Amino acid sequence: MTQQDYEALSPETLASRLGSVESIRARLGDPSQWTVREVGDGNLNLVFIVDGPEGSVIVKQALPYVRLVGDSWPLPLKRSFFEYNALVRQDARDPGSVPKIYHFDEVQAIVAMEFLSPHAILRKVLIEGGRVEGLADMLGKFCARTLFRGSDLSMPTAKRKADAAMFLGNVEICDITENLVFSDPYFDAEMNHHTPALDPVVKVLRDDIDLKVTAQHMKWAFATNAETMLHGDFHSGSVMVTETETKVIDPEFATYGPMGFDLGMLIANFLMAYLSQPGHADTPGARDDYQEWILGVVADIWAGFEAEFTHLWRTERTGMLYQASLFEDQGHARGAEQARIDRLAAIWRDTLGFCGIEMHRRILSLAHNADFEKIENEAVRARLEARSLMLGRTLAVRRGAITSMAQVIDLARQTNMEDYL
Amino acid sequence: MTQQDYEALSPETLASRLGSVESIRARLGDPSQWTVREVGDGNLNLVFIVDGPEGSVIVKQALPYVRLVGDSWPLPLKRSFFEYNALVRQDARDPGSVPKIYHFDEVQAIVAMEFLSPHAILRKVLIEGGRVEGLADMLGKFCARTLFRGSDLSMPTAKRKADAAMFLGNVEICDITENLVFSDPYFDAEMNHHTPALDPVVKVLRDDIDLKVTAQHMKWAFATNAETMLHGDFHSGSVMVTETETKVIDPEFATYGPMGFDLGMLIANFLMAYLSQPGHADTPGARDDYQEWILGVVADIWAGFEAEFTHLWRTERTGMLYQASLFEDQGHARGAEQARIDRLAAIWRDTLGFCGIEMHRRILSLAHNADFEKIENEAVRARLEARSLMLGRTLAVRRGAITSMAQVIDLARQTNMEDYL
Repeated sequence: MTQQDYEALSPETLASRLGSVESIRARLGDPSQWTVREVGDGNLNLVFIVDGPEGSVIVKQALPYVRLVGDSWPLPLKRSFFEYNALVRQDARDPGSVPKIYHFDEVQAIVAMEFLSPHAILRKVLIEGGRVEGLADMLGKFCARTLFRGSDLSMPTAKRKADAAMFLGNVEICDITENLVFSDPYFDAEMNHHTPALDPVVKVLRDDIDLKVTAQHMKWAFATNAETMLHGDFHSGSVMVTETETKVIDPEFATYGPMGFDLGMLIANFLMAYLSQPGHADTPGARDDYQEWILGVVADIWAGFEAEFTHLWRTERTGMLYQASLFEDQGHARGAEQARIDRLAAIWRDTLGFCGIEMHRRILSLAHNADFEKIENEAVRARLEARSLMLGRTLAVRRGAITSMAQVIDLARQTNMEDYL
Repeated sequence: MTQQDYEALSPETLASRLGSVESIRARLGDPSQWTVREVGDGNLNLVFIVDGPEGSVIVKQALPYVRLVGDSWPLPLKRSFFEYNALVRQDARDPGSVPKIYHFDEVQAIVAMEFLSPHAILRKVLIEGGRVEGLADMLGKFCARTLFRGSDLSMPTAKRKADAAMFLGNVEICDITENLVFSDPYFDAEMNHHTPALDPVVKVLRDDIDLKVTAQHMKWAFATNAETMLHGDFHSGSVMVTETETKVIDPEFATYGPMGFDLGMLIANFLMAYLSQPGHADTPGARDDYQEWILGVVADIWAGFEAEFTHLWRTERTGMLYQASLFEDQGHARGAEQARIDRLAAIWRDTLGFCGIEMHRRILSLAHNADFEKIENEAVRARLEARSLMLGRTLAVRRGAITSMAQVIDLARQTNMEDYL
């Protein structure tokens, strides 16, 4: 029924179909004066910028198939429902971190929301060498707040379980992650593609049993460890920035999963931005300072996450796990601290595991990163992609041995000087 | 509405209320000749044995409160729905392992099922010093088959996720486990009670920060790691036996959780049976051989589980995790074996953790074991309970260091000779 009543919007029909929605009209003014542009360049959806006499609004509508692939790959509209629900929760858990929502229509799979302007997609900014004040601070805090506050560390468990059950319905979207992220990169899967010159490195990785086992262990963790509500697709294309402001968008991959998943994917995309910089430098070395800035962001994201998670652990641990009644109330605050250190260590290991896998799938699987794709010289691109593949391998397989962000950054700098082809 | 239409059965009303159910009548014959006995001695439900001219049937009905405590502790009837659904799945995954079901009525929270005769509750048999042929083999296989086949190692993931979402509704039952098992034993919780002479040991445990942190880590695992459908209450009171047959009953605590939970609880109850034997010996040493038989069962349960899990891993790994397309199909069967060893190691660690916690909660929390409770001499009981508490502590806290069942059995034998009071 939902599917039958659904109709895709177009720039021509948008004003007549949404002009009567009061919350949208209040933002834009007279619908007869709206101008509509379709700007969706992502993989899955229609995205319209609607300008009216009094303001602008983003209208995002799910398509019943994967846009990147076409209608041969159907994808349910209900992902819009999960995106809406995730946005509402993220805004409650880290107020102001995501666009304001003006309207949600489940049947039409439409979310109308705040038009962020003059924000740009972070990935584009990183490719151009732009800097954002407060970027790491916002992203680290966003992770800590959404991950902590969506878990049994904070929520009443009946509510957490109901939420987890609801998000388990996001099956087809999780299926994309489960296949494209964790499995396809490691064998010759149908939708894979990669820069041809990478062949020898790809062969090494696909013959690497420790790596493949690691990838499947991470898939196990992703599929079974329902620790908290994740963003689920937290890369630099899901972040919008100005020079001083950072917002998070597009949580349609939201699902319950392990805390390290969002952190790992985010850090992976910064490490890929770092390693890809030589391909965007006008002259050799021109991006050296900028590369160091990116590594600083990586370090500060983790540090910010850890600090905020610690703050929330000490001040908002109201859920059923590690209750104060067992620790602080018994004069055993040290026990709660010890437990926090253990949990952070587990999140750290997961973060490295997911980070390494993400650095592979963006080069070997279906959905690639502009960071590398925009490098037109294939030999240069392959050399930089190979670095990402090899660093990802070390981070994922050695996640139990690498114990600090300083070690990660040191490994990144070292990898940035190596040649694997 | 469900709650309004619900009416508790009684021996007087049972025949008139269920006499028209064809599947029950077919087993029993003419309802006017049924005789009904209420035999529920558990904590939660009404249980009737119904004898008719042609056979017997068990009728189990949930009560809207915790029977052990009274109507001050309401408990939803829907646990009957979860029990029914768990029984159906267990029978499909390990055929013949559970009673056959004749009838299910969701509104009345009634399950009518096979009357197992001449079976006795395993816990009673263990207290009496009875032996059961094939016990460990059946229990080890049951764990392997139900745990493996209810997971993403075997099931289509969309079906597994739908199942996991459904069982997330068993909130109030999980809440019992979460509180009574993982938290209450470790502080002076309202419903706790213990043998008074244990006070000094209880103080030591409740001051033991490493132990409390461990218990909460295991609670975290129980609450978040939705690996498979668990029995959820897999102790020796949930097993019925003859001298040669073993059946599993009462899965109303079914939930998705970590594989080690069922195994750990089961092994804990055997270790408590072992340590309690001196309290049931007519003369000192009279149960020495029997104690060794119990330890043999413990060893064989794990060995049987490991062997069957390995067999299923090699022959039925049809789920989305550790796919053959990544390993065997690439000539990397060794990778799949390496992954299996890792997974078994993780299950083993969890098993020890849950085992140790279960050995505490049965002595310190609300629901105790007849194994110890039936020992009338309080000084003897306390001495044996103290052994269980201390062994549980070692198993839980040192779960990362204890690597074989031989070590566990050695620890049990050692503990069996010590005096902590």
